[in-house]
Amino acid sequence: MRIASAASTDLNKRPPNATVRPKVNPWDASCPSRAVIDLLASKWVLLLVPLLRRGPKRNGDLMRGIPGVSQKMLTQTLRELERSGLITRNDFGEVPPRVEYALTPLGKSLAKAIATFDDWVIRHYYDMVKT
Amino acid sequence: MRIASAASTDLNKRPPNATVRPKVNPWDASCPSRAVIDLLASKWVLLLVPLLRRGPKRNGDLMRGIPGVSQKMLTQTLRELERSGLITRNDFGEVPPRVEYALTPLGKSLAKAIATFDDWVIRHYYDMVKT
Repeated sequence: MRIASAASTDLNKRPPNATVRPKVNPWDASCPSRAVIDLLASKWVLLLVPLLRRGPKRNGDLMRGIPGVSQKMLTQTLRELERSGLITRNDFGEVPPRVEYALTPLGKSLAKAIATFDDWVIRHYYDMVKT
Repeated sequence: MRIASAASTDLNKRPPNATVRPKVNPWDASCPSRAVIDLLASKWVLLLVPLLRRGPKRNGDLMRGIPGVSQKMLTQTLRELERSGLITRNDFGEVPPRVEYALTPLGKSLAKAIATFDDWVIRHYYDMVKT
């Protein structure tokens, strides 16, 4: 998914020479930040990002860490996170190939917010299912 | 979405008379908590739940509060959240009908975790799109 820039799409709404950026509001359907909510509102993102919090991981580590994910979905998720500046893909240029994925500082700050969310699910799961 | 109970599906793994509940681990593909992650990993849930934080809302308030959501998707999301004990649906039995949706205490605690997540998106949107 390509995430459009609010600053460029809303340029016409800004006063001349303004350095103020348009307010981010995902509740506004025309705000491009909604695409970010859409990208992150993914089961695979919520499971993958916390795994990378423990350190860089190779593709195989991630496939094993998230049983049930398909290779196609994992690759797609990794590419979207890389494009948004949340993870880096480090190809060591070795034979056989060695490629590692790691959180950027921005990704690490997202990982904290996701951890809060995942922790809530783990803590309140039994309240939701009322066993 | 019906969320299965871990306690009943994993009953065979528990020692007799045990009161200990199976550990919740959404990274395990067989753990039913993954269905909860799947339910909550929704753009509409992430936008709807914080709106209800400000107080009970009627269907029309929610449609206006989340421009772009379809009536079908809103109804489906409300039903899933109600089934999971996160919101209540209060029908005042009036003519014309008046129905309000409100967060339960459980939903309020989820709303806090979601607010952390939404706040992150709002705060870091421009870091992600690198304007």
